Amino acid sequence: MSESPEKDQRHQSRMQRKKALIDEKIAQARDERGVLLVLSGNGKGKSSSAFGMLARALGHGMRGGVVQFIKGAASTGEEAFFRRFPEEVRYHVMGEGFTWETQDRQRDIAKAEQAWAVARELLADPRVGLLVLDELNIALKHGYLALDRVLADIAARAPQQHVVVTGRGALPGMIEAADTVTEMGLVKHAFKAGIKAQKGVEF
Amino acid sequence: MSESPEKDQRHQSRMQRKKALIDEKIAQARDERGVLLVLSGNGKGKSSSAFGMLARALGHGMRGGVVQFIKGAASTGEEAFFRRFPEEVRYHVMGEGFTWETQDRQRDIAKAEQAWAVARELLADPRVGLLVLDELNIALKHGYLALDRVLADIAARAPQQHVVVTGRGALPGMIEAADTVTEMGLVKHAFKAGIKAQKGVEF
Repeated sequence: MSESPEKDQRHQSRMQRKKALIDEKIAQARDERGVLLVLSGNGKGKSSSAFGMLARALGHGMRGGVVQFIKGAASTGEEAFFRRFPEEVRYHVMGEGFTWETQDRQRDIAKAEQAWAVARELLADPRVGLLVLDELNIALKHGYLALDRVLADIAARAPQQHVVVTGRGALPGMIEAADTVTEMGLVKHAFKAGIKAQKGVEF
Repeated sequence: MSESPEKDQRHQSRMQRKKALIDEKIAQARDERGVLLVLSGNGKGKSSSAFGMLARALGHGMRGGVVQFIKGAASTGEEAFFRRFPEEVRYHVMGEGFTWETQDRQRDIAKAEQAWAVARELLADPRVGLLVLDELNIALKHGYLALDRVLADIAARAPQQHVVVTGRGALPGMIEAADTVTEMGLVKHAFKAGIKAQKGVEF
């Protein structure tokens, strides 16, 4: 029971101010957390876009990380370029890539696990402002890594860190977990018109 | 008239070899020409993708150019980053941007014309291996530049140069002229979930 209507009102007013303050803090925490972006689809520009975001982040004075889950899938050009800045970008390319030809599934899983161990380290590092997990969707689609564990590690990352996951065929669980999903749709492709892959554009 | 069937056959064979050689040269010329890429659609990643391609090109030892047709539309982060390499990237941001608010159409057209003059210079420069015309589609959509003239200048560019045009609402003529078109479709966006624009990701 309240002692007086006046006291009641003061309390209510105080509580309202407190609630507003807490709400603001919650909003702030939520708004300033890092985001998970997924770039999927069959069109061009998934990895390019991720690397463009990395350039942007470096321009803001942030640091970045890259783990490529398919060797040679993203460009050797991008690797050559971002390896110029070892103080700013930690760059890791997974083993020797997947064994599409030899079908050595156990070896592929082992390589993917090694790459994920590096990714986990970078996810936990608050100095890494933006982390590119290039072609991770492919490794997940082939079951080389378990989606649940990957999503749990991403969710447990350094709170301000942005993560960009690329690769066609993003699993539904990945899309659900993401804050932003862009589907790169193929409208028209030079290959189909008989033009060779172009250095600086395709690789 | 032929002098002998044997001679005829030698001639035919020689001509066939010659034709094969010419065909190969034609194919080579066509295949090694630069491509025109258009990145459009409402999803994220159009400008990022263009800047990722620029990073890739620099990684291959190529030089690049950037003309931004909307000031501040692409990121200040990207600008800050690529301005680190003035020997490798010529970077131009159009005047003070368009006057969406004041609706001074003549001023907007004049600014777009100035930016296009810089673009033409870069298009003609064979040292520029990849040229980003960022948000050019917006300038075209608003009629600040005539599509015919823009396409003619792009077609007349240094033959090996790749050009990347970004911006939503690409005009049909631009799509037709392009070798590759990617439509970035919005699947899910963090803004809609109440998350603020993020430094390094959105700008």
